[in-house]
Amino acid sequence: MNTGPARGMRDFLPEDVRRRQYVIDVIAGVYQRYGFEPLETPSVENIETLLGKYGEEGDRLIFKILKRGEGAETGQADLALRYDLTVPLARVVAEYRARLPKFFKRFQVQPVWRADRPQKGRFREFYQCDVDAIGSTSMVVEAELLGAAGDVLSALGFTSYTMRLNHRGVLAGLLEAGGVPADLHGDALVALDKLDKIGRAGVATELDSRGVPSAGAGRLLDFFADVQAAAERSGEDGGAFNDEVLARLGALLEGRRADALADLSTIVRLTASTSAGGHVRLDPSLARGLSYYTGAIFEIAVADLAGSLGGGGRYDNLIGMFLGQDVPAAGISLGLERILVVMGERGMFPKDLPTAPADIMLTLWNAEAAPAALHLAADLRSQGVRVEVYPEADKIGKQLKYAASRGIPFVAVMGDDEAAAGVVAVKDLATGEQQRVAASAVAGLVRSRIVT
Amino acid sequence: MNTGPARGMRDFLPEDVRRRQYVIDVIAGVYQRYGFEPLETPSVENIETLLGKYGEEGDRLIFKILKRGEGAETGQADLALRYDLTVPLARVVAEYRARLPKFFKRFQVQPVWRADRPQKGRFREFYQCDVDAIGSTSMVVEAELLGAAGDVLSALGFTSYTMRLNHRGVLAGLLEAGGVPADLHGDALVALDKLDKIGRAGVATELDSRGVPSAGAGRLLDFFADVQAAAERSGEDGGAFNDEVLARLGALLEGRRADALADLSTIVRLTASTSAGGHVRLDPSLARGLSYYTGAIFEIAVADLAGSLGGGGRYDNLIGMFLGQDVPAAGISLGLERILVVMGERGMFPKDLPTAPADIMLTLWNAEAAPAALHLAADLRSQGVRVEVYPEADKIGKQLKYAASRGIPFVAVMGDDEAAAGVVAVKDLATGEQQRVAASAVAGLVRSRIVT
Repeated sequence: MNTGPARGMRDFLPEDVRRRQYVIDVIAGVYQRYGFEPLETPSVENIETLLGKYGEEGDRLIFKILKRGEGAETGQADLALRYDLTVPLARVVAEYRARLPKFFKRFQVQPVWRADRPQKGRFREFYQCDVDAIGSTSMVVEAELLGAAGDVLSALGFTSYTMRLNHRGVLAGLLEAGGVPADLHGDALVALDKLDKIGRAGVATELDSRGVPSAGAGRLLDFFADVQAAAERSGEDGGAFNDEVLARLGALLEGRRADALADLSTIVRLTASTSAGGHVRLDPSLARGLSYYTGAIFEIAVADLAGSLGGGGRYDNLIGMFLGQDVPAAGISLGLERILVVMGERGMFPKDLPTAPADIMLTLWNAEAAPAALHLAADLRSQGVRVEVYPEADKIGKQLKYAASRGIPFVAVMGDDEAAAGVVAVKDLATGEQQRVAASAVAGLVRSRIVT
Repeated sequence: MNTGPARGMRDFLPEDVRRRQYVIDVIAGVYQRYGFEPLETPSVENIETLLGKYGEEGDRLIFKILKRGEGAETGQADLALRYDLTVPLARVVAEYRARLPKFFKRFQVQPVWRADRPQKGRFREFYQCDVDAIGSTSMVVEAELLGAAGDVLSALGFTSYTMRLNHRGVLAGLLEAGGVPADLHGDALVALDKLDKIGRAGVATELDSRGVPSAGAGRLLDFFADVQAAAERSGEDGGAFNDEVLARLGALLEGRRADALADLSTIVRLTASTSAGGHVRLDPSLARGLSYYTGAIFEIAVADLAGSLGGGGRYDNLIGMFLGQDVPAAGISLGLERILVVMGERGMFPKDLPTAPADIMLTLWNAEAAPAALHLAADLRSQGVRVEVYPEADKIGKQLKYAASRGIPFVAVMGDDEAAAGVVAVKDLATGEQQRVAASAVAGLVRSRIVT
């Protein structure tokens, strides 16, 4: 019998769960300090809620659930597993609009499922950590989102990361300036999105094959190369670099899409007052895959990770697909698994994350001693001490060995002598030191030695 | 467009999530003080992992997922949604046996899915909170499980609850004593399980229709009625009642299944040293639905809830279905939704659970003031204050009204006067009192007024 998890899925043993929970707690703590509130939606959605929202490729990757009863014969699917946290949010905003505040700010940390080909670091079940602000077109929203994501990364111990920033309107202006016909903008964005992966020559070939006039394409690619060179020259001075990019964009756009360019400029200026300040870098070539973005777009990168730690942007039309009336919205999604991978490789988890299952293990001298052990355990637990009770009256040596193998720092022995004297022998497994103390003093002894 | 959640599924808005998270945190905290470690398994399992483990009815209620690619045409399902947390645990123990400790104690709080007909209080996606101890046949395990569940209920504020306790071996002995042929034991248990619902006469009819000899059935039902009468006489004195039941069982069993009866007696004795002590009541008619139990079985009941808050038992053979070799195991599962229902109806949630999204809202005097507001927000957040920044430069009156509608206790105004004087006007919305303080004093002011 196959006892492994299903393909592309993972079991999380205790150490894994503790690390995941640590990161989730940090993220939730930061987001709550920004006034974001928790939301949870079902893992399973009606299939029509999801279909048609992620593009053709996305539809193909949705896990579909057989209809009960007749489904077994017809193969009909009426439900599907959540594919991301943004579309369910849009549905929720449409459903509960009257009960939700005008500016609904929510965070959501839940798994999503994609029927993708599993590979290193890509799973079929993975967690997204989303933060979104609904109801305002103000660029304060973008600044707060980038600030919150920056605070999350700082709180987790990341010091060096880049928040790439662009704007769909500015991109459209660039394509217009490059003479790309409006009906080819979508194709051009798909090609541009690959600049990181396939390089300038690759993108030029793809643009050509999609029918984008080569003169305009060349002008755009020159511009991106110039910006890239400026980025390399600028080194750490993001402020001067961003100013230079804004000036270059202004020159190239020649008044096109002035609102979008002004928004971009505002975001750069506002983020300077947030913890995202030193990390935001304009990147006019950033395109992002998803089709629903309408304004600013972001992507968060760290040096030693191919791909991004997260990304997001403004999507002012998505809720309208459910509500029939547009509601402005913007958000950022952090990828939990990627954060965990980088933190694991760099040894960034706090040293004091618990690894032992308990602070002290109570041995069982003999079967008759079990009530006394359970009684002491109850007393210690009521004082917040984490207590393991060895369940069987094995030889004491074997019990001590077990505690050591589990990394439990203290062991208590209540033999006949100790019971007669009304004391407990407490052994520190690190030092080997043993002392007899009153039962009422055990909690204090353990707590004095353990950093919690 | 339908914007509701799928049938039998629920969206959890912020207040719901906070309550759920509060209960989950209490449960996880208690279980960790008992040395249980966190485990998480995938929502999706290979379909053959689940099929055949829950009985025919269970198999029918498993949500099945279409195979990618060809599944759309053939209707073939190769994956399924987790139906409970016990079968995945058995799979995990078999898969990672060499890496896991001899006594693997884990807790797991995750959703499960059942394609049941939705009705009041019964959902298709719901959370189970399971705690299981693997690897020991000692009754210390049962005592610790009941103690842990008792501590969870106490920590949540439940004072009056009953832990019904029985043993599958004792039940078998009773059926033997009643002259029920061995091949009818399963049928008899199914009928007995309904005693609460359909009463003595109903069970008698069902036993008869299943071919159980009526003389023996009558003797058993008399016995259960006698025990029930004794329970009503005993009132609060569970200790004397349990002693009486043990004596009656001994008399009826006449030496049959002596080990099982001794185990039951041991559990009663050991739990007296735990927080489950005053709550354990022997109930020889308790049968439990699932077929995999082999020893002690439990069910937790509170007065005003039909059905149970949770239940469990010993299942020494289930892991063997995956491993090919039996490993002893026992556990208890608490139903999160039922706990939440009772706590909600009784008003048991702590008064200090946060309801407002922030401790203070910073108003926006005008668009030019946004950097200063973001700067103050960053400063306050770094001191642990939860801060909402109103994103738009609306009229101040409108902004104050919004803060009040959100239940945010403090509002800060930084107008031109305040900016010139280098101060912030902080208004307490409960008292209407307003005072000007230095920006560096805002955090202290807010924290001094808020219980956190």
